[in-house]
Amino acid sequence: MLSYKEALDVILDNTKTLGKEKVFLNQALDRVLAEDIVADRDNPPADNSGMDGFAVRYEDIVGASEENPVILTIEGESKAGGTPPKLQKGQAIPIYTGALIPEGADTVIQKELTKVENGKVYILKELKKGTNIRLQGEDYKKGDILIKSGKKIRPPEIGILASVNKPTVYVYQKPKVGIITTGDEILDIAEPITKQSQIRTSNTYSLYAQVLQTGAQPVIIGFAKDNPESIKENLEYAKNCDVLLTTGGVSVGEYDLVKDFVKEVLDVKIHFWKVSIKPGKPLVFGTWGKENEKLFFGIPGNPVASMVVFEIFVKPALKKMMGYQKLHNPTIDAILTEDFSRKSADRTEFIRLNVEYSDGQFYAKPFGKQASNILTGMVNANGLGIVDIDIYKIEKGSKIKVVMFDMDI
Amino acid sequence: MLSYKEALDVILDNTKTLGKEKVFLNQALDRVLAEDIVADRDNPPADNSGMDGFAVRYEDIVGASEENPVILTIEGESKAGGTPPKLQKGQAIPIYTGALIPEGADTVIQKELTKVENGKVYILKELKKGTNIRLQGEDYKKGDILIKSGKKIRPPEIGILASVNKPTVYVYQKPKVGIITTGDEILDIAEPITKQSQIRTSNTYSLYAQVLQTGAQPVIIGFAKDNPESIKENLEYAKNCDVLLTTGGVSVGEYDLVKDFVKEVLDVKIHFWKVSIKPGKPLVFGTWGKENEKLFFGIPGNPVASMVVFEIFVKPALKKMMGYQKLHNPTIDAILTEDFSRKSADRTEFIRLNVEYSDGQFYAKPFGKQASNILTGMVNANGLGIVDIDIYKIEKGSKIKVVMFDMDI
Repeated sequence: MLSYKEALDVILDNTKTLGKEKVFLNQALDRVLAEDIVADRDNPPADNSGMDGFAVRYEDIVGASEENPVILTIEGESKAGGTPPKLQKGQAIPIYTGALIPEGADTVIQKELTKVENGKVYILKELKKGTNIRLQGEDYKKGDILIKSGKKIRPPEIGILASVNKPTVYVYQKPKVGIITTGDEILDIAEPITKQSQIRTSNTYSLYAQVLQTGAQPVIIGFAKDNPESIKENLEYAKNCDVLLTTGGVSVGEYDLVKDFVKEVLDVKIHFWKVSIKPGKPLVFGTWGKENEKLFFGIPGNPVASMVVFEIFVKPALKKMMGYQKLHNPTIDAILTEDFSRKSADRTEFIRLNVEYSDGQFYAKPFGKQASNILTGMVNANGLGIVDIDIYKIEKGSKIKVVMFDMDI
Repeated sequence: MLSYKEALDVILDNTKTLGKEKVFLNQALDRVLAEDIVADRDNPPADNSGMDGFAVRYEDIVGASEENPVILTIEGESKAGGTPPKLQKGQAIPIYTGALIPEGADTVIQKELTKVENGKVYILKELKKGTNIRLQGEDYKKGDILIKSGKKIRPPEIGILASVNKPTVYVYQKPKVGIITTGDEILDIAEPITKQSQIRTSNTYSLYAQVLQTGAQPVIIGFAKDNPESIKENLEYAKNCDVLLTTGGVSVGEYDLVKDFVKEVLDVKIHFWKVSIKPGKPLVFGTWGKENEKLFFGIPGNPVASMVVFEIFVKPALKKMMGYQKLHNPTIDAILTEDFSRKSADRTEFIRLNVEYSDGQFYAKPFGKQASNILTGMVNANGLGIVDIDIYKIEKGSKIKVVMFDMDI
């Protein structure tokens, strides 16, 4: 059976980044740039004032002080977006933040260091030549690469894209991720319950939300019953997806038909079935499509295994398809606040933890019930602690590596 | 002038949580629950099998071992979603994970501990009574509160909402956040540049993206020129917003008209103008509307100040409106990797940092250029280091508190 790391390598080695597409800026947040962003002008585009005050010639204000102010004639104005007059000897031009430095001026005296009386300005302090002037191109020069292809687009990048006149931008495409829920016992929301043994789905919608959160496009294909016709019909509808997720139907039971029919209907090449992890052991991974560019994940049906398998295996693959450089959830070291022990240590176990950050340190609290079917334990959890193979016990106060699925700490 | 903390208190004290609304489950991710979520059934709804194998009576298999297997007659089947027959003495019913425990059975022997020959099953090991049975209500009982009102909805919560039959759910409303960009010099994307002094907006769209990222609803009202008519016209269109953000026009310049006209047009009550922070000092905050339930932020025009002010003041207010319990960005302690010093220490300064996590520790690297107009520095940053008033220098290797605006570490 593959180890966690081996399985991850197989998945990522078989995952290809999708092509690019143009999107409008309002759709670009959290997408990944598929082009370098180049400055279309110098920034600032011209020398301008960093303060409200007066543009002056340095040589006119040498020696100015509160006791011996220099008195200058007020002339014209330089306001943002305007074109100021030329500054002559003995004059001062009122200027506002961001406004052009008038020709002839070389220094700006902020308002607080001046006094205006009878149409004259009193300069109360000598400042160094060039003070309060933001130089043309000081931030960047025309032609500079401001953001490299491959960067995740966040609000600062959106601001820069606007400022260099890019209402549309190339990003990597999102995969279309089909979700098929299997099992005779599984009902969709609002379907009437007719037998005590029926279960309402949680996986369909937790997977939907996980796909959405990853930035990919979820498609709920349907609910397949445990018979060949129903499974085949649903698989037919998955053909136009980039990634297929099935939930349930991958164990050793006679009704676990998914593995067989994905081969038959979609010509899926199975790379592995079963990984040495807990929960999530019966995971199936395959590739399909013309160039094996499409992915298949047969995800175990129990709700916690489903969430864990998505976070540690499916999400990194989807992120690679979307061009992300960081594929994995943040992994931090936390101090375990209670003992953890287990009876068998033949698999890498992912335990639900509630991680808090205080006094410069992460603390992780495990939950009593770690059974893989207890979804409610996920509500209080924000991370998955990794317990390596052969580790039977982690003592209170020891460090544990935690894959965080919610960094709102 | 108010301190950072005082300003934050004024803002949050004047911010009210909005009412609730019903949304479909596919829109509920990252919203905040405005109702308790109660279990509609026990979970599991009935005793069921945790393994594929055979349902048996414990008393029939006492003493079973590889050397002395117990031989039972195979009878019927219990599959997920089905209704099994009653188990009689001397019989074993094949059972699959999740399937109902047949009446009369009290133990499940996993397939691996059995052998089937000639229609009989050989039980190769005695297991404890009750082994591999998941008990009805073991996860939760009908009527239990599974998620409390006020919880942020993440994928696990979406899964639980589906499983308790909630296709729609009450969440707190999102504020509609109007954005007005001011300044004669500011052009929208794609507008032709006719003067060297004109600047293409970045703030309009970085604020748009920040509002979107916070989960609120951005509305780009327009671009106001520095004259009363243009400003008033734009403000008129802000009347149906819950929050108004203006960018620019809040300094001491004669063309900084926003403060005056928000009073005139929207009857904004100004709570403060200017905060002892850098960048972002000229921030204006006010409330308006029938019950002063609407917020106004006059955000300074320089791009970095705009981003900083949003992260530290506007975002927590929007989150409070949306019912979030955690209002602030995560704040971590990082080790500064280079000296930081400044000449004046009369304000709380927020310095752009690139924070990395390695070997259980956050490391923060400052950038050379900290001028508030240098937006490109934000591209490599993911956090804002807090330099308190009266602190002139933080040495390399010392700790610094960092407000993270991107936790993808």
